[in-house]
Amino acid sequence: MSLFGKDIKSMENLFTHTLQDIYYAEKQILKALPEMEQKASNPQLKSAFKSHMEETKGHVKRLEDVFRMAGQDPKGVECPAIDGIIEEAQDVAGDVDDKHVLDAALAAAAQAVEHYEMSRYGTLVAWAKQLGRSDCASMLEMTLKEEKAADKKLTMIAGSKLNPQAAA
Amino acid sequence: MSLFGKDIKSMENLFTHTLQDIYYAEKQILKALPEMEQKASNPQLKSAFKSHMEETKGHVKRLEDVFRMAGQDPKGVECPAIDGIIEEAQDVAGDVDDKHVLDAALAAAAQAVEHYEMSRYGTLVAWAKQLGRSDCASMLEMTLKEEKAADKKLTMIAGSKLNPQAAA
Repeated sequence: MSLFGKDIKSMENLFTHTLQDIYYAEKQILKALPEMEQKASNPQLKSAFKSHMEETKGHVKRLEDVFRMAGQDPKGVECPAIDGIIEEAQDVAGDVDDKHVLDAALAAAAQAVEHYEMSRYGTLVAWAKQLGRSDCASMLEMTLKEEKAADKKLTMIAGSKLNPQAAA
Repeated sequence: MSLFGKDIKSMENLFTHTLQDIYYAEKQILKALPEMEQKASNPQLKSAFKSHMEETKGHVKRLEDVFRMAGQDPKGVECPAIDGIIEEAQDVAGDVDDKHVLDAALAAAAQAVEHYEMSRYGTLVAWAKQLGRSDCASMLEMTLKEEKAADKKLTMIAGSKLNPQAAA
């Protein structure tokens, strides 16, 4: 991140840096979701991707509000974690032909994305509270709840015989 | 993964590929943990990293057993996701001087790692069950429980004023 020194000096700096990290991540996810939706065959999975795309747009907007509440301009910072998670999803999806197996791979990839987001939002909520910013914490908590719900929905879809033939 | 074609043809292939992915990931985590332990100042956090290192060695062994149960040789496959998560942890840690802020950054990084593992083991347990391999599912579920417990412990440590001065 910094070529010239130790740029993160306080918890406020660390909070802002992590906001920038998840802001970049949400935007990368927004770019990746249409391809995932397009590749999915199972109607429930397709619809889960579609509705999560709308939710993700809301998460980006909500982050922009939190930036402003914290007196910062919304800005992204490169996030090798989400880049790696998305790269891996694309690699695996590119290696599968069978549509049921592909659905299983896509659902698993999406759950890895959700878990990354859950860890970042969980951390941000805790830090916002420690910094006495319950206003920011409430906003971030709304997104955290939606990410958890999206993950649960994917677990349900994946568990409900996403791949009956493939696993037969 | 494959330069010459679609290598993942069945759920069994996808299961094995994901086992290889998390096997590589666990080994990378094992390499990263000593530096995280060494950088941590908070005694609880230091001890959490130390005990998780021992647990991780057990997870590697358990994965080797699951490979054998599935009739496969234990083998890792490159996992850009964990590489990205660890790279990001190292980038951020390198940007922080204050020991309380560094502890907070390290705990957050470790939770991102735990969440990645939770998503992969959760997926593997579900697939093992779908494939009728409840023996593999039980083994993987033991690790999943330990990863969830490690994540909860980190949440507790991070919540208990890991950084009282930094956040004051």
